[in-house]
Amino acid sequence: MPRFLFLGVDGGGTNCRARIRDDAGALLGEGTGGPANVLLDSRLVMSSILTASRAAAAQAGLAEADLGRAYAGLGVAGAGIKSAVARLLAEPHPFRSVAVETDAHAAWLGAHGGADGAILILGTGSCGLAVVGGRQSYVSGWGAQVSDEASGLMIGREALRRTLWAYDGRAETTPLADAILSRFGGSAEEIVAFAANARPADFGRLVPLVLEHAASRDPLALALVSEATADAARMITRLLDAGAPSVCLLGGLAGVLEAWLPPPLRERLTSPKGDAMDGAILLARQAQAAPAPRPASAAVA
Amino acid sequence: MPRFLFLGVDGGGTNCRARIRDDAGALLGEGTGGPANVLLDSRLVMSSILTASRAAAAQAGLAEADLGRAYAGLGVAGAGIKSAVARLLAEPHPFRSVAVETDAHAAWLGAHGGADGAILILGTGSCGLAVVGGRQSYVSGWGAQVSDEASGLMIGREALRRTLWAYDGRAETTPLADAILSRFGGSAEEIVAFAANARPADFGRLVPLVLEHAASRDPLALALVSEATADAARMITRLLDAGAPSVCLLGGLAGVLEAWLPPPLRERLTSPKGDAMDGAILLARQAQAAPAPRPASAAVA
Repeated sequence: MPRFLFLGVDGGGTNCRARIRDDAGALLGEGTGGPANVLLDSRLVMSSILTASRAAAAQAGLAEADLGRAYAGLGVAGAGIKSAVARLLAEPHPFRSVAVETDAHAAWLGAHGGADGAILILGTGSCGLAVVGGRQSYVSGWGAQVSDEASGLMIGREALRRTLWAYDGRAETTPLADAILSRFGGSAEEIVAFAANARPADFGRLVPLVLEHAASRDPLALALVSEATADAARMITRLLDAGAPSVCLLGGLAGVLEAWLPPPLRERLTSPKGDAMDGAILLARQAQAAPAPRPASAAVA
Repeated sequence: MPRFLFLGVDGGGTNCRARIRDDAGALLGEGTGGPANVLLDSRLVMSSILTASRAAAAQAGLAEADLGRAYAGLGVAGAGIKSAVARLLAEPHPFRSVAVETDAHAAWLGAHGGADGAILILGTGSCGLAVVGGRQSYVSGWGAQVSDEASGLMIGREALRRTLWAYDGRAETTPLADAILSRFGGSAEEIVAFAANARPADFGRLVPLVLEHAASRDPLALALVSEATADAARMITRLLDAGAPSVCLLGGLAGVLEAWLPPPLRERLTSPKGDAMDGAILLARQAQAAPAPRPASAAVA
């Protein structure tokens, strides 16, 4: 039985995942829980984290009490907002210690093992982080209204906008615009009603249709993917200009957009060493190894 | 005492205005009420309309009972959604008859006196309508998420987006970006919190700052106004292509964007004959003059 355990949690607005390793680094178990964006209700977020952690402990053959031997690292969306992190850390938990950082920070730790470098997450939303000599530079990730370019949210929402342009005659229609309109029963009113209530992931579900049509050179689809690529290029350029020797593209759109990027950017991309859960475990190890006694929340950015 | 009265209401999401004329066309009174977008609660909308109508009646020296002699025309936002119009018409009202159309339709009736032509409203939102030989062609006006280009909403929201680009290093900063950031205490988090809860009019309140900086050739401000102008040009082109002999620009941004438009579009702009309240009065007159007996809702588009 190892003396210490290390627990890493990767948490976003939809769900979170936890992984437990022993002090030698061996994988013991993994589990899944509910939403863990820190901007949500702190009780809900801690409950999601505990659900994932207990599932990981159960898979590892550990008892509930064993979580008291775990140094926990939480890489959770929204952790840039310090007041929200403080609320989360005020919730009761069984862990020996808790260190919190953003999901992007955990992704960077996992991808580069703590060495200088950058990550760019292109998923439902988008967020990038370069860490160079301990200095952090974030890019994007400011939310659905005024940010998150090159994401599924953005591509899907812009696809609907341009479909309406075709619908009301401001633009030529294309097979993609026709396909989107028919997905809404040919009704612009249905699109409007959908868009008024859609969450980011709902817009993102249009991305496969866009990509399918881009493959057959649909002009609207080509424009949408090109614009997303230009947005991604702007973010990658910023991360490299901050001094990052390389950038790891992560998230569901990473594989898609990589091939569209200009070669001078593409050649600076690398594959991640590990994932965000292992990054969160590294965060927990760093907190444990910290020389001075620190409060549980000391690792908050 | 005139036998009949004609009441015209111009209603949007923020407030509504009513005007009463006698059967000879003489202006008797005007009044203001609350929100009248038909997509809001029907009781609230009718209450807003009655408040404005009673205020107009009071200014005209008329009694409440005189509204029973009024043919009412309502030009109200959201009236393209027929189910919402039906709910509004199910509310009790004192009028002799009620005809409902969109605010854009009333604006067109007022601007062109019912003749072929187009209007393009560039305000907090945007919406255009060409009517040619009785055939209506709407453009934009599909709501904040996927539409309403060239509006105060769009310019303000994009100004915040680009300010965040400057803040996180994706773009060079400019005096406008600096001014916007300092309006939010230098905090990107404040911008994010504002954007998450802002209504269209809240974004629109940034427009004066953008225009002020455009006047001194700020690169970001110039880009924002140029993009809005390109969006407006696309809409005007559509309205002209639908056969409209001319387009009246209306709304708070009309005067601003007109000067930026390419000459071939600018020379097709005309001044409106009358406003949307007079358009709504014309709607009421048309409904009264209709040869066959019609239900009160017959004028709904």
